[in-house]
Amino acid sequence: MNVNGIPTRTLRPLPTQDGIEIIDQTMLPHRLAFRTLRGLDDVAEAIVAMRVRGAPLIGATAAYGVALALADDPSTAGLDAACTRLAATRPTAVNLFWALDRMRARLTPLDPARRFAAAWSEAAAVCDEDVALNQAIGRHGMALLRDRHDAGAATVRVMTHCNAGWLATVDWGTALAPVYAAFDAGIAVHVWVSETRPRNQGAALTAWELAQHGVPHTVITDNAAGHLLQRGAVDLVIVGADRVAANGDVANKIGTYLKALAAHDNAVPFYVAVPGPTIDWALTDGRAIPIEQRAPREVTHISGELEAGGIADVRVTPAHSPAANPAFDVTPARLVTGFVTERGICPATQAALRALYPQEDTRS
Amino acid sequence: MNVNGIPTRTLRPLPTQDGIEIIDQTMLPHRLAFRTLRGLDDVAEAIVAMRVRGAPLIGATAAYGVALALADDPSTAGLDAACTRLAATRPTAVNLFWALDRMRARLTPLDPARRFAAAWSEAAAVCDEDVALNQAIGRHGMALLRDRHDAGAATVRVMTHCNAGWLATVDWGTALAPVYAAFDAGIAVHVWVSETRPRNQGAALTAWELAQHGVPHTVITDNAAGHLLQRGAVDLVIVGADRVAANGDVANKIGTYLKALAAHDNAVPFYVAVPGPTIDWALTDGRAIPIEQRAPREVTHISGELEAGGIADVRVTPAHSPAANPAFDVTPARLVTGFVTERGICPATQAALRALYPQEDTRS
Repeated sequence: MNVNGIPTRTLRPLPTQDGIEIIDQTMLPHRLAFRTLRGLDDVAEAIVAMRVRGAPLIGATAAYGVALALADDPSTAGLDAACTRLAATRPTAVNLFWALDRMRARLTPLDPARRFAAAWSEAAAVCDEDVALNQAIGRHGMALLRDRHDAGAATVRVMTHCNAGWLATVDWGTALAPVYAAFDAGIAVHVWVSETRPRNQGAALTAWELAQHGVPHTVITDNAAGHLLQRGAVDLVIVGADRVAANGDVANKIGTYLKALAAHDNAVPFYVAVPGPTIDWALTDGRAIPIEQRAPREVTHISGELEAGGIADVRVTPAHSPAANPAFDVTPARLVTGFVTERGICPATQAALRALYPQEDTRS
Repeated sequence: MNVNGIPTRTLRPLPTQDGIEIIDQTMLPHRLAFRTLRGLDDVAEAIVAMRVRGAPLIGATAAYGVALALADDPSTAGLDAACTRLAATRPTAVNLFWALDRMRARLTPLDPARRFAAAWSEAAAVCDEDVALNQAIGRHGMALLRDRHDAGAATVRVMTHCNAGWLATVDWGTALAPVYAAFDAGIAVHVWVSETRPRNQGAALTAWELAQHGVPHTVITDNAAGHLLQRGAVDLVIVGADRVAANGDVANKIGTYLKALAAHDNAVPFYVAVPGPTIDWALTDGRAIPIEQRAPREVTHISGELEAGGIADVRVTPAHSPAANPAFDVTPARLVTGFVTERGICPATQAALRALYPQEDTRS
């Protein structure tokens, strides 16, 4: 994806191999600020504070976090401690645990002296593979938009939620990969961008990256989604996921379930775009997915740019009113039209997912 | 309702009969600011700017707006112009048109010299009747909470949307009247307050008035409603309405439809509390209800209180991303468990509504 016209990944390992450069996503859309993470502490803080977020990007960043930790302590105890530390940063996105399991499996058998170099390579492979997976999701998903276009839609109107775009991955995005692929192929597209309270990843991140790429879009409140679906303003909904259970239940950003209900009620297709590492084969259904409870301050305060310049938090609630902040919800598979994966599109059933991924093991 | 311990109505006619005092709701929850409206211009501005809002309070304020206009020009042309001007302030809430029709019908036959005094009395009657209607809604609706309490709920957990409380009416509220009645009767209650983007009437107004009355509550994002309903954290949902069609379809604040879908999907009762004047007998169903499109700035900017004090707007979207802002949506009657009216509770069907209101004429 281009940023200010320059092809850019969201995560760049330093050639000196002593850190990685990320985009500090908490500063968007107001500032494009890069930030260098030099070690395990920096990486863990960046994930907790959501400077990097999005299931695939969390996984990729954590892989480099393991590598940077091994530069300080390549022992098996050091490897285990790094993985334990990183696993505690966010509970819902399964790509994090997938990446840590992969790093541990690759590195544990090695002599400690060889671990750092292998970890750096493995983290790079996680990133490159993420890019390839997302490009494949884009190719498969583009068919959904092309079908609408070929059926006569002058503009294919997509609704999404949160940010499952370039900024949620190493490149291209999951839910937005088909949008970018269609746009680049000359299909007219318009995206309804749901602001995604409390952290406004739609308003702040999805709108920003669509604007950078030139894709027409309109920001709406999360509340407006049902009305637009009811009034025929949406051709299809595409969202990402933080974790998909083996039966097709989907954990994704809070509010996804409401969009799925409204899409279903109005017979609008609702697709979930995920790479293989987002599927948690060990979970039989979505009820057991841990739902992260984040700080009430994300609800009581909103961050934005002042008219006079400068970024500030404003409180929107009475001073003493408590707030609750569940960060994800679970959309039952029955509301999902299908999954868009790097291996193709399939219905949201256990059998269909298994048919696409016959070799996948469950995590121990 | 008490404000700082003092029984207060949201609208107070001045004893000098040359204006009305309102609470400027755009300053809440940060400041309790009263504002005097001296004439038609002031009243129209206050409704457009949502200094007063909520279907019943809009109707009551507009009634006084007619009276204040007649103080300047009591002619029939003056009366018509005032009604036309006020009717153009907000398109969705039917109480506005109901109040204007009532004022016009009462005043047109009178000699112009007698119109102002009659208008002032009639506006006072609209207010007093609103209070009585809401108290009756509270009595009937309290039974829903008492049933839950008697069935063993230690705390009855209510979810609401937007503000259909004291601040939306002259006193007591519609959706919150049963909550206040139950709370005052000693039934333990907890209210999930949905913030209600874009204008945050839940976070700003509902949370504030519940806190003033001492009712336990928790603010959530609109996105969190589905998750809480799915996880069994809600006993019943009660919302207000801006307009109910004769078949039971409900126009209410944007996002109401999403809550109704989620309540229905989880078999949680979904009630709509409305006084008779909110029912538009002339509309056969909700599809024809005009949906107000408000300024995009309400989506792109959020108002709140800075840490250092002072109220400011912050921009949450990229500078050049457009936004859309439909202010209401329509919930189909099939998703509504029942209406709580001043005449009792009834299912959301045309026959049941007609049985409660057999004498109501359709508006011409």
